[in-house]
Amino acid sequence: MSKTDAQFMEMAMTAAKVAAEEGEVPVGAVLVSPMGNVIAMAGNSVESDDDPTAHAEMRVIRLAAKTLKSPRLLDCDLFVTLEPCAMCAQAISLSRIRRLVFAAYDPKGGGVEHGARVFSHPTCHHRPDVVGGLMETDAGVLLKDFFATKR
Amino acid sequence: MSKTDAQFMEMAMTAAKVAAEEGEVPVGAVLVSPMGNVIAMAGNSVESDDDPTAHAEMRVIRLAAKTLKSPRLLDCDLFVTLEPCAMCAQAISLSRIRRLVFAAYDPKGGGVEHGARVFSHPTCHHRPDVVGGLMETDAGVLLKDFFATKR
Repeated sequence: MSKTDAQFMEMAMTAAKVAAEEGEVPVGAVLVSPMGNVIAMAGNSVESDDDPTAHAEMRVIRLAAKTLKSPRLLDCDLFVTLEPCAMCAQAISLSRIRRLVFAAYDPKGGGVEHGARVFSHPTCHHRPDVVGGLMETDAGVLLKDFFATKR
Repeated sequence: MSKTDAQFMEMAMTAAKVAAEEGEVPVGAVLVSPMGNVIAMAGNSVESDDDPTAHAEMRVIRLAAKTLKSPRLLDCDLFVTLEPCAMCAQAISLSRIRRLVFAAYDPKGGGVEHGARVFSHPTCHHRPDVVGGLMETDAGVLLKDFFATKR
């Protein structure tokens, strides 16, 4: 039986917690196949990988594309604990992801419901179905706790 | 003596031509250090790497960050033969690149002067200086020729 959205988001939360333990901004993501199997799971690793593009979403997209041997992740779904930034949103569009489910909204850095609103322009070639706010309280607490320890 | 903008763009054009020979959309990029040295040079490799994020700009940013052992490319400049998409524009912002010089404008896929206009939002944390249109005719011809052979 396929997992529920909440179960996939729990997995993304786990990846976010691992990232926090490594001193990274705690964001985690899971990429799910059309059959409902997890193809990739990763946390943000910008600092530890010396890679400004290593957001959790980018990492699962790259991992899944390698695994599926295709740059297009047709009918795949992405679960992430924070609203994607414009970089990740455009990568989601480029990889033809079917559905994006995110937890916390990000008024400062988000590029889906805020800022660049990548999917809202007529030139956007592919728009996923978007669900925001699933388990946003849990994801928000994780981020808040992380930044509290940094101050 | 440091190279001129046109010389760096010539190098990016060379990377774009190599990409075309490999069946990739011909876009090339060069990342230049604050001292004016080329740190990374790469072409688009989306298809050959099975990586939807492997645009030329992303590749040179990732390569340069690894080389400099830092996710922030302070005072570095990026030369690319096509206006960056929203993914690449946000990566440029995240990596704190000082100056972006691009050749051809991209009304359909661009995210700097078109579409998401990533640098134009109040929430954009870092905006590079932007120069568009340098050697745009040459870059445009390369892209046009490539797509002509695909039809």
